[in-house]
Amino acid sequence: MPKKILNIGLIGYRFMGKAHSNAWRQAPRFFDLKREVCLHTICGRNSSELEKARVQFGWAHAQTHWHKVVADPEIDIIDINTPNDTHAQIAVAAAKAGKHVLCEKPLALDVKECQKMLQAVRKAKVVHMVCHNYRRIPAVAQAKKMIGEGALGEIRHYYSRYAQGWLVDPKTPRLWRLQKQHAGSGAHGDINAHIIDLARYLVGEFDEVCGQMQTFIKKRPLPENPKKIGQVTVDDATQCIGRFKNGAMANLEATRFATGRRNHIHMEINGSKGSIEFDFEDMNRLKFFDNTVANDRQGFADIIVTQKDGVHPYVGQWWPPGHIIGYEHTFVHTIADFINAVAMGRSVQPTFEDGLKNQAVLEAVEKSAQKRKWVKVK
Amino acid sequence: MPKKILNIGLIGYRFMGKAHSNAWRQAPRFFDLKREVCLHTICGRNSSELEKARVQFGWAHAQTHWHKVVADPEIDIIDINTPNDTHAQIAVAAAKAGKHVLCEKPLALDVKECQKMLQAVRKAKVVHMVCHNYRRIPAVAQAKKMIGEGALGEIRHYYSRYAQGWLVDPKTPRLWRLQKQHAGSGAHGDINAHIIDLARYLVGEFDEVCGQMQTFIKKRPLPENPKKIGQVTVDDATQCIGRFKNGAMANLEATRFATGRRNHIHMEINGSKGSIEFDFEDMNRLKFFDNTVANDRQGFADIIVTQKDGVHPYVGQWWPPGHIIGYEHTFVHTIADFINAVAMGRSVQPTFEDGLKNQAVLEAVEKSAQKRKWVKVK
Amino acid sequence: MPKKILNIGLIGYRFMGKAHSNAWRQAPRFFDLKREVCLHTICGRNSSELEKARVQFGWAHAQTHWHKVVADPEIDIIDINTPNDTHAQIAVAAAKAGKHVLCEKPLALDVKECQKMLQAVRKAKVVHMVCHNYRRIPAVAQAKKMIGEGALGEIRHYYSRYAQGWLVDPKTPRLWRLQKQHAGSGAHGDINAHIIDLARYLVGEFDEVCGQMQTFIKKRPLPENPKKIGQVTVDDATQCIGRFKNGAMANLEATRFATGRRNHIHMEINGSKGSIEFDFEDMNRLKFFDNTVANDRQGFADIIVTQKDGVHPYVGQWWPPGHIIGYEHTFVHTIADFINAVAMGRSVQPTFEDGLKNQAVLEAVEKSAQKRKWVKVK
Amino acid sequence: MPKKILNIGLIGYRFMGKAHSNAWRQAPRFFDLKREVCLHTICGRNSSELEKARVQFGWAHAQTHWHKVVADPEIDIIDINTPNDTHAQIAVAAAKAGKHVLCEKPLALDVKECQKMLQAVRKAKVVHMVCHNYRRIPAVAQAKKMIGEGALGEIRHYYSRYAQGWLVDPKTPRLWRLQKQHAGSGAHGDINAHIIDLARYLVGEFDEVCGQMQTFIKKRPLPENPKKIGQVTVDDATQCIGRFKNGAMANLEATRFATGRRNHIHMEINGSKGSIEFDFEDMNRLKFFDNTVANDRQGFADIIVTQKDGVHPYVGQWWPPGHIIGYEHTFVHTIADFINAVAMGRSVQPTFEDGLKNQAVLEAVEKSAQKRKWVKVK
Repeated sequence: MPKKILNIGLIGYRFMGKAHSNAWRQAPRFFDLKREVCLHTICGRNSSELEKARVQFGWAHAQTHWHKVVADPEIDIIDINTPNDTHAQIAVAAAKAGKHVLCEKPLALDVKECQKMLQAVRKAKVVHMVCHNYRRIPAVAQAKKMIGEGALGEIRHYYSRYAQGWLVDPKTPRLWRLQKQHAGSGAHGDINAHIIDLARYLVGEFDEVCGQMQTFIKKRPLPENPKKIGQVTVDDATQCIGRFKNGAMANLEATRFATGRRNHIHMEINGSKGSIEFDFEDMNRLKFFDNTVANDRQGFADIIVTQKDGVHPYVGQWWPPGHIIGYEHTFVHTIADFINAVAMGRSVQPTFEDGLKNQAVLEAVEKSAQKRKWVKVK
Repeated sequence: MPKKILNIGLIGYRFMGKAHSNAWRQAPRFFDLKREVCLHTICGRNSSELEKARVQFGWAHAQTHWHKVVADPEIDIIDINTPNDTHAQIAVAAAKAGKHVLCEKPLALDVKECQKMLQAVRKAKVVHMVCHNYRRIPAVAQAKKMIGEGALGEIRHYYSRYAQGWLVDPKTPRLWRLQKQHAGSGAHGDINAHIIDLARYLVGEFDEVCGQMQTFIKKRPLPENPKKIGQVTVDDATQCIGRFKNGAMANLEATRFATGRRNHIHMEINGSKGSIEFDFEDMNRLKFFDNTVANDRQGFADIIVTQKDGVHPYVGQWWPPGHIIGYEHTFVHTIADFINAVAMGRSVQPTFEDGLKNQAVLEAVEKSAQKRKWVKVK
Repeated sequence: MPKKILNIGLIGYRFMGKAHSNAWRQAPRFFDLKREVCLHTICGRNSSELEKARVQFGWAHAQTHWHKVVADPEIDIIDINTPNDTHAQIAVAAAKAGKHVLCEKPLALDVKECQKMLQAVRKAKVVHMVCHNYRRIPAVAQAKKMIGEGALGEIRHYYSRYAQGWLVDPKTPRLWRLQKQHAGSGAHGDINAHIIDLARYLVGEFDEVCGQMQTFIKKRPLPENPKKIGQVTVDDATQCIGRFKNGAMANLEATRFATGRRNHIHMEINGSKGSIEFDFEDMNRLKFFDNTVANDRQGFADIIVTQKDGVHPYVGQWWPPGHIIGYEHTFVHTIADFINAVAMGRSVQPTFEDGLKNQAVLEAVEKSAQKRKWVKVK
Repeated sequence: MPKKILNIGLIGYRFMGKAHSNAWRQAPRFFDLKREVCLHTICGRNSSELEKARVQFGWAHAQTHWHKVVADPEIDIIDINTPNDTHAQIAVAAAKAGKHVLCEKPLALDVKECQKMLQAVRKAKVVHMVCHNYRRIPAVAQAKKMIGEGALGEIRHYYSRYAQGWLVDPKTPRLWRLQKQHAGSGAHGDINAHIIDLARYLVGEFDEVCGQMQTFIKKRPLPENPKKIGQVTVDDATQCIGRFKNGAMANLEATRFATGRRNHIHMEINGSKGSIEFDFEDMNRLKFFDNTVANDRQGFADIIVTQKDGVHPYVGQWWPPGHIIGYEHTFVHTIADFINAVAMGRSVQPTFEDGLKNQAVLEAVEKSAQKRKWVKVK
């Protein structure tokens, strides 16, 4: 009996659209899924650019109005990849139309929006997921498994930095990502959101935070006319310290001003029995210090997380040990799990609730930075 | 005007079949190619397994006799992924049928076979390529570019080791890869072939070699019946020292007995002006020592080879800087270049001639190991 | 003409006493100093232990009362290595007696004490230095030089963590270092003090800070009787965020609860033109990213800071390139510079003023942690 | 009761003289030895240079004729640090005079000389040692211990490279080290000797070898007059493959033409149960892969070999965990063990017999390179 088919509607066709298109295409080729997938409709506002993307990424149809995609009775899943200020309206409409929803992070611009979205998907009883794809880096999933098995004992420290350097040049234009009304925030919502999610995934819920945000270069040339200058209204870098509800200490820093760092996510977690260290630029490796090993042989083990199925998560579906995978595979893993979740009718982590909680932490840090005081995370 | 379509016939459907299928599928999605690609026919002997592969990998047709694929007038390209002892006959037949031929490495079992294959593709004037995919690791292609620009000066040392550990366990069965009649040789033809190819690509032609080959575990259980024991008739490890025609010294070692090494290809090249170091398990990085830098600031630079098009080769087609790619992408790059080569009617490196020269080095090392003396590479 | 001799009085004979004794002995053997050195008197309260230390470390005399050492007219230099709560009284007495003073860090228990000490040495016009020995790690001195030359441009981030793991075991006894009355603070004064000093040395003065301090294990067995339990009255870990007066952001974390970290000082400094990274456990290396290098060759250069004199600081006095030095050498460099400073009659960085400023930052962080608010550094 | 004193006579005062002087001075300060040490006499031919060295290094007397040092009845130990062509005569004379002998490596110019030396020390029943100091790098001693405990199982591969780059510049003068009559050989005797010794220490005796030696730059300016040109009569680089008597494969390469390598000794040993990796430029670390660890947690552990006594060898005598030591400490460890050996009247590894066996391997490789064939090691 052939598998049932899920028809996908993808809203947005740029960086994330490319990554998600690839994932929808690749997931069924490498994972044994409960449903077939059809790349049904891709949606964007610029029709000529959209058509190029449709052909390049392999979608059957193109559509310039997202309402029509959401309204299309053939579509089963809406995958939202648009700028952050449009997530909420699309997701709510999609849920109302009975579509399952996958949404890029951050879930929305603020907690209020997130709550509406969560309410909508719950009411509609659709499957929902926020695309915090880094949870499904095999090394991160392996870390999660090991923490669950008690390999780290009681956790004391979550120490992480997400460092990029692409804004160092003052001539880099004032993109939409640098405007508060479109992006919500800068490094904070874009990349701090990732390490906040990893913190919640691996360590637990935040209790209290204290942060500061900084904009190093406040005016930049406009992308459409470099002779004109526009205001940068988001943070170039955000840092915060804090505590988790389980007593562990948190230290997070996100910056776009770390010269030489391309997409560097460094993370160290220290527990009473062991520690792990991870660096996204070496994403196939997990460093693990096991305090139970004989004294003279202790050291951070450099685990190349590429072993077969049943040993390491996800990666056995790809290639033999030692043959590494890359960035895009984290989307494939996410979407493979989402497809099966839709088939089972049960949402899988990270859900919109995770998106909401992530947003609550983001807001607490922002509020803390504005008021210059400690803020409880609700 | 729509692009012309190339119909592909893929012979072999296991590890390499999976990797090549993926590459044929992905190449047009990420590279701007001169032709469309159709995954026309996949071929294998076991019809039920083949059908599974056809569906999984996304091929239109399946065929259990390779002669029929070669004879199919719709097919433009034959891609050979079968065991090494069948390469020659398929390639020769494909060439005679006027098909362009991509062939997995090693090109064949011996120099004689390689010569026949080269003769056949030349006579038929078809485009030919041997799939030494590691040449198109962006870091390796970047190394090639830098060497071409003189960044290393006169090269003195090529020092490389391809180390795997999967045969350490004596209970690992006696697979076809461990039998001389099917595989030709063991670590030598399978993985030494790769670092020989990289040596030829990056440094130049070999002049003379001296090697030894060793089989640590000479008897293993048969895969079909672990109670029966079979002879291992290939090398577990091969090493050789030698000289290139340009005077550089060579040191190559290939082993399947390096416990803890998954797919470790380490390579260092030292020249009069600089050095490079590369490790396949960190394949997105190239270490480069530049002797012209100020004394107090010299050090191996850890280049993350993920910059955009025009800076680093191939990788700009994928994701932004710092978002790494993996093993499978090397096949995509290879096949993207092959597609354009077919469109242009001109073979692109590494051609069957490279396959032949690689085989000549392999044979010289083997002969040297048997006769226990230095052997000139013809 | 023979060099004049400086007679040294060393107060304290444990860990720091051992390190300083070695440095006084070794400095004249490897550096061309303006004075001879005589290891005149070592001082401690336990006379039998002291005698063992005297013999082992090579001192001429032993003395159980520090007042007598300070009063000894033969002594030129007092080197203070006692617990933190005794620094001030010894230093003030030594200055009054006209001795030059080298004092271990932290300079004292609070700013008030530091001010008295600074006043005393200034009034007495003696040479003074606080032993922040990590400034004279050749890699750190090289970083200082490069920053001075503008290699990093405008600095945006100082990101540092000093991580040890020796308190993870709850059975580790309640040593003097864990009592506020003797140690002043825990990880904060002991190790955060180091990275605060490096921040001031390499980046500049702090403007404002916000921190938190945590004691994970609040009761521990007494060292003299493990059946009795004592209160831990200092921090196990301290972290703070902040800003420098030049606008750079600061992030510092010091912990004794990082399982697997022995004496890990990680530091990254990002500037508009380049970045540096340093790890004390690899103290002979400095990673430097130079943004002015050609795009395709950029990467953190792994500078092995072991080149000869005139290239890298200090290290040429020891061994040929690539022959690394260790922890103790940082004391030798410090003391070599101090000896020459005494000969010249001019204090050399870091002076007691640096000790005072360091203490001001320490106190600001502590106050911030207590009051749970941002605090200006005076 | 005070310890008896051993009076030392040091022949040679340059690089090795400096390193040995330091070791004689430091050993009693950090190790609990069975004898006191007196730096009695330093010996060299240039009396003014020698006097400077005497003062700088802290020796009591200076002497320009080594015969007189050997004849001095006060002297207990002769420590030979002169060019290689003088080792034999001095050692034989010292033994005849009843002195215990420590000799720098390589022990002599050829096997014949080594045999004479071994005969002489045996006949005289004096304690003898060849200064292969790298055996007492704590990480190497730890590797030895672990191999002895079976942590690696049956050893299959010894893979090592000693790479320096200081001869890359053609203007580097033709020093005595580049003349066969003084140095015996080039990279081979100077640095290959070290990794041959480590191979013998960690793996076992060599059975058969095949090597090649190369001189890249055959003429260089004379040190005394750069306008005159002299012949380089030793190897710039030597490489060899081979087998140990226990069946393991050997691969050794020594070069002075590896641009960017300062004093890089890389070594990997693969066994049936585990592997180790070591890099001298990170000499405080040992990488260990343990194949018995759970599948999903396996990885090369980065052991920082700085734990206290009883855990890691030697290093607990120095500083707390994570406070690294350097190059010179390997001499201190060697000399500490030698002092105790003299006190006990029993030679300790590596003895002159080790020096002889090392020389036998060196000669076998040289013969192999000359005759271009495999050579058995006697």
